[in-house]
Amino acid sequence: MGERWSLDPDRYFDPDATQRRVARELYEGVAGLPIVSPHGHVAPQLFADPNASFGSPAELFIIPDHYVFRMLYSQGISLDDLGVPRAGSSHPDGSGRSGGSGRSEPDGRRIWQTFADNFYLFRGTPSGAWLQHELIEVFCIEDKLSGDSAQVIYDQIEARLAQPAFRPRQLFKAFNIEVLCTTDAASDALDHHQAIRDSGWTGRVLPTFRPDAVVNLDTVGWRGHLDALAKAAGYEITSYARLIQALEERRVYFKRMGAHATDHAAQTAYTSELSSPEAEAIFSRALRAEATADDARLFTGHMLMEMARMSIEDGLVMQLHVGSFRNHNTELFAVYGADKGADIPVAAEFTRNLHPLLNKYGNDSRLSLILFNLDEDTYARELAPLAGHYPAIKIGPPWWFHDSMNGMRRYFDRIMETAGIYNTAGFNDDTRAFASIPARHDVWRRASANWVAGLVVRGVVDRQDGREMVNALAYGLAKRAYKLNEIAS
Amino acid sequence: MGERWSLDPDRYFDPDATQRRVARELYEGVAGLPIVSPHGHVAPQLFADPNASFGSPAELFIIPDHYVFRMLYSQGISLDDLGVPRAGSSHPDGSGRSGGSGRSEPDGRRIWQTFADNFYLFRGTPSGAWLQHELIEVFCIEDKLSGDSAQVIYDQIEARLAQPAFRPRQLFKAFNIEVLCTTDAASDALDHHQAIRDSGWTGRVLPTFRPDAVVNLDTVGWRGHLDALAKAAGYEITSYARLIQALEERRVYFKRMGAHATDHAAQTAYTSELSSPEAEAIFSRALRAEATADDARLFTGHMLMEMARMSIEDGLVMQLHVGSFRNHNTELFAVYGADKGADIPVAAEFTRNLHPLLNKYGNDSRLSLILFNLDEDTYARELAPLAGHYPAIKIGPPWWFHDSMNGMRRYFDRIMETAGIYNTAGFNDDTRAFASIPARHDVWRRASANWVAGLVVRGVVDRQDGREMVNALAYGLAKRAYKLNEIAS
Amino acid sequence: MGERWSLDPDRYFDPDATQRRVARELYEGVAGLPIVSPHGHVAPQLFADPNASFGSPAELFIIPDHYVFRMLYSQGISLDDLGVPRAGSSHPDGSGRSGGSGRSEPDGRRIWQTFADNFYLFRGTPSGAWLQHELIEVFCIEDKLSGDSAQVIYDQIEARLAQPAFRPRQLFKAFNIEVLCTTDAASDALDHHQAIRDSGWTGRVLPTFRPDAVVNLDTVGWRGHLDALAKAAGYEITSYARLIQALEERRVYFKRMGAHATDHAAQTAYTSELSSPEAEAIFSRALRAEATADDARLFTGHMLMEMARMSIEDGLVMQLHVGSFRNHNTELFAVYGADKGADIPVAAEFTRNLHPLLNKYGNDSRLSLILFNLDEDTYARELAPLAGHYPAIKIGPPWWFHDSMNGMRRYFDRIMETAGIYNTAGFNDDTRAFASIPARHDVWRRASANWVAGLVVRGVVDRQDGREMVNALAYGLAKRAYKLNEIAS
Repeated sequence: MGERWSLDPDRYFDPDATQRRVARELYEGVAGLPIVSPHGHVAPQLFADPNASFGSPAELFIIPDHYVFRMLYSQGISLDDLGVPRAGSSHPDGSGRSGGSGRSEPDGRRIWQTFADNFYLFRGTPSGAWLQHELIEVFCIEDKLSGDSAQVIYDQIEARLAQPAFRPRQLFKAFNIEVLCTTDAASDALDHHQAIRDSGWTGRVLPTFRPDAVVNLDTVGWRGHLDALAKAAGYEITSYARLIQALEERRVYFKRMGAHATDHAAQTAYTSELSSPEAEAIFSRALRAEATADDARLFTGHMLMEMARMSIEDGLVMQLHVGSFRNHNTELFAVYGADKGADIPVAAEFTRNLHPLLNKYGNDSRLSLILFNLDEDTYARELAPLAGHYPAIKIGPPWWFHDSMNGMRRYFDRIMETAGIYNTAGFNDDTRAFASIPARHDVWRRASANWVAGLVVRGVVDRQDGREMVNALAYGLAKRAYKLNEIAS
Repeated sequence: MGERWSLDPDRYFDPDATQRRVARELYEGVAGLPIVSPHGHVAPQLFADPNASFGSPAELFIIPDHYVFRMLYSQGISLDDLGVPRAGSSHPDGSGRSGGSGRSEPDGRRIWQTFADNFYLFRGTPSGAWLQHELIEVFCIEDKLSGDSAQVIYDQIEARLAQPAFRPRQLFKAFNIEVLCTTDAASDALDHHQAIRDSGWTGRVLPTFRPDAVVNLDTVGWRGHLDALAKAAGYEITSYARLIQALEERRVYFKRMGAHATDHAAQTAYTSELSSPEAEAIFSRALRAEATADDARLFTGHMLMEMARMSIEDGLVMQLHVGSFRNHNTELFAVYGADKGADIPVAAEFTRNLHPLLNKYGNDSRLSLILFNLDEDTYARELAPLAGHYPAIKIGPPWWFHDSMNGMRRYFDRIMETAGIYNTAGFNDDTRAFASIPARHDVWRRASANWVAGLVVRGVVDRQDGREMVNALAYGLAKRAYKLNEIAS
Repeated sequence: MGERWSLDPDRYFDPDATQRRVARELYEGVAGLPIVSPHGHVAPQLFADPNASFGSPAELFIIPDHYVFRMLYSQGISLDDLGVPRAGSSHPDGSGRSGGSGRSEPDGRRIWQTFADNFYLFRGTPSGAWLQHELIEVFCIEDKLSGDSAQVIYDQIEARLAQPAFRPRQLFKAFNIEVLCTTDAASDALDHHQAIRDSGWTGRVLPTFRPDAVVNLDTVGWRGHLDALAKAAGYEITSYARLIQALEERRVYFKRMGAHATDHAAQTAYTSELSSPEAEAIFSRALRAEATADDARLFTGHMLMEMARMSIEDGLVMQLHVGSFRNHNTELFAVYGADKGADIPVAAEFTRNLHPLLNKYGNDSRLSLILFNLDEDTYARELAPLAGHYPAIKIGPPWWFHDSMNGMRRYFDRIMETAGIYNTAGFNDDTRAFASIPARHDVWRRASANWVAGLVVRGVVDRQDGREMVNALAYGLAKRAYKLNEIAS
């Protein structure tokens, strides 16, 4: 199959020789730093059991990764053929994972072949870059992935996954991860996190408090989520006041379990405070399953303000992810459930929507509100001016579709001149694909080094300032924004 | 007049020597490919008569081209001075073209002089690049166009236009056009297309079905367009059901005449299905000239869904052009009519607007819905995520104001990482200026080669993948998206 | 403190050697041209008194400059610690400037130390670039500003400011300023401008007519501003008709005092004509302090049309600044007043909003309407197509947050292909920081040269055209757009 598959050591750097030389030097200064991963969706159970494994190559790379299978789906390949389990059924391999009911492809080799036959679709995409990095760097694959090489490569990955060195805890250390934060429902007992602590393993894996399912009244299955929260709280949640109490108590528990942050998703950044009677009235309508779409909107906007208040009181960093129209493909959602690559962004607005919250809490340095966004048009227009003024605001890294070489370039280009890098929060990998973490941080570190090199060769900053900036982007800003030096876990 | 006017052989490539070398190599691999022109506005009559000619230099380059005269108009030069005919009057040269009534400049040489005196206005614009390409490559002009050289150049163009080699059919072959699609009203008898077929000429010129004038109830002169459709259908269109019948029958006729696609323009991408009684009620209000603006909006949104249904049934590719506020300059429209450079874009929205259509038809691979857009903000935010998920969607090339070097760079930059190139539709020239077709495709091919070269020198794709990508962008994607290999015409 | 602090002579140019060489050559052709500053906020009193001085280094660089102190504030440094005066109190140094009431830091040296300790926050920002340029080029500072060097540099600046050569009038000449336009309330008696004229000093400092405070009915303190206008007019303004009369008369006065332009700020570009009775009704509600938010919106939209009418009649250029949510931080506004770095942009819309105004006046070349905007998304989508069609429209330079290297690159990238450079208005520094004027124009001239060099090396324009373009951008377009050659002042 020709010459050896490889990664360009100067990948993602500008081709100009002067800039490239500076970029490489800056990159080399941070390439070996530990990985700080303050926000993501890796399952904590991977680290709870010392012998946990990743399953088959298809289970590791394709079946759970909506970044990957959505691209194949867009070209007419069915999710069944990619092994994506249908909702409400258990997986045919008997593993207990939901799936199949006989319709989803059970054969990992056939799934892998379909993937490899269509690997050309990922040309020029971040998924393509991450996959190539994982295959070459983590799994030592030497042939380019294609329909021809598919089965040989499957064998090689399968063999490596069977080795102890490829278990999650071993890769965590091999990846040089200093801290990894998961995302956990407000009602979660955090059993896996407790098991990690009890096991004496030294990897730092921390929970993050995410109450969306109970705070957004229009969540599918809201009542079930509320009941789970009630169970975790130990009392029935019969009123808005009780909800607040339960959330405050769960935050205390999460914090005791090592959490540094909360996470909130909303379609818009709308905030506005309700009076207690208004909040009670909406909540009791929700309990009677009578809440309207407008109720849900108002309640979410109010709860964001409550969460800011609690963050000021308990010191948890507050993350807000805005702008995704979830489960846009109704038919697909009915069959396969959520997170199937059908979340589509919508335009966002922050200046007016955050006005109530910022007027109440924005001048308070105890609040650290990190904003994530899928609408890049708000970068220069709203986010950078807001973060360049309010002490409480930091801008999160380029998110989701924008977690890519070009997305990062646009992020640096549009945000940094107004906000400065010190009003940003470094990098998040935000991934559920654990094996892609080094690849994703590597892209960020290269993109940061290349951007700062561009400033150096244009005479905007000197070499020494440039080194400090790249170090901050690669490591320091994330630790500071998430207060990861402040609280021992 | 000094040194010879020329085109830089490396034009539009990045200046970095490494990238430029790769770009040139990639470009050379596709520069000679046949031109596929699946969407545009060239008049089919140019090819119906073997002896048709382009008229004078002013008639070829200025009078019909709103890209050109709008720029001169913006600097205070009147459309009359540029020979643009006033609506409803016939042209003073007796050719039968509408125009003048004695007020529009009849002298092509004077028009040309005004144009040449102000040719500096086009510095750095795509119109400037196309005009320079046409003058140098097609008409072999050797002096830079200016007020001084205007009349000599006029003589030279006029002399060439008198030669048989400069007739439309001869240029069609010289330009190496494999297929050229026109845009034709739903009521059009396609006489010119019939004449082309009857003549035995082998140039492939295909019609495209565009029903906007009858489907958008707020079209100026809607009733006249409906009557024309009725005449073509052979029966009165007295009901919504009859309208649907007529449209379906006309699609059959267009398809028999070689059409591969339909085309639809709307100010927004709004879609939503009406019940049949609702559709009938609105249509009967329209027949009584009582339809409201809201009726028109609802009806267009409904008819887009009907058109998607018909496309699934008959296989015609569906093009949707969104986002132009047509005839913004009311005074100019009253005097000169439509297409006078006064169509101004507005913000667009796809995620919510296309939700009804995509939920009904988006998972159906038989539908090929190609989206065109004037609001680049939707590229990364909405279009790429939609095309990167739904099997039915392809993204059309950068349109109109964005059909330019920078527009193409932004298009590649913002769309390809999320959608991948294989969810796009290659290039359209979309022009009514036939002589500019090679120039426009050349810009696209150079921009594609330069973009892919950027990926190669940054280690994102290897050389072999790069060659396949440029080939697809220059030729293959357009043929595939428009199914130009599938149906013999 | 190591090697000498310096400015890279090739700063802001692309690193590619070919482009850089062309950029440098083009830049050198305009670097020495006089500065035309047709819009800004420098206080005219600086030039009214031949012995006026800039005060202390803190008073020159920090206290009045919201670009500077907002960045420090965003990191939790209080405005008090930066010497920013609290509203309604006088400054503790007895100078008569408002400020302090004992809470704002009175010691310039301590303020300067705080600034220097945190100067790293400005890495990669335009404020950082301007400050470095001012310190090195204007004040001959040789050590890099930091916490360590702060006090030595304070001494050096203080010493220079005490020299006659550093008085405003002397710097005006040293900066090679050909003309400087201030911004003045409609009610302003223009005493300082009169004093400049009376003094026989030859510096050309011109007023600009800004009626926002009386035209926007929701201005805080509107009634006081109206009373000031009445006083200037010499009669009570008891009706809308009287308001129009007073504004027309004030325009005559401003024009006689040398004004070439008016300036208007509005949160949106909404325009729509009211009937006279409607306008009277709203105005009388405003006089009774009963005007609603909607009244204010309608009245502003109407008055913009009136201002366009007056501009056609009296020839004053009309500037419109759109898109800032002023005083977003309510608490800060209450304590410190306006212009404290808390003006946050919102999305803008021009196509529909300007439709009424453009349909009435857009075809009239006597109107020169210069549009400024904080929402870059409108650049390619709306502003460039509008300016590329309507004779009355010119696009102002990148404004405020976008007055930066990247902001300028995006501006050139998104606007010029459609509008052409000749539908733009050159550069404005828009600053109240007089000493930053050379730095700001230098960035623009370098950015222009670098952008045009990019066109030259890509074969888009030839060298001669490139030279003319850079000259126009650096000097000629501003003079033409503001008619600065036409009217003797």
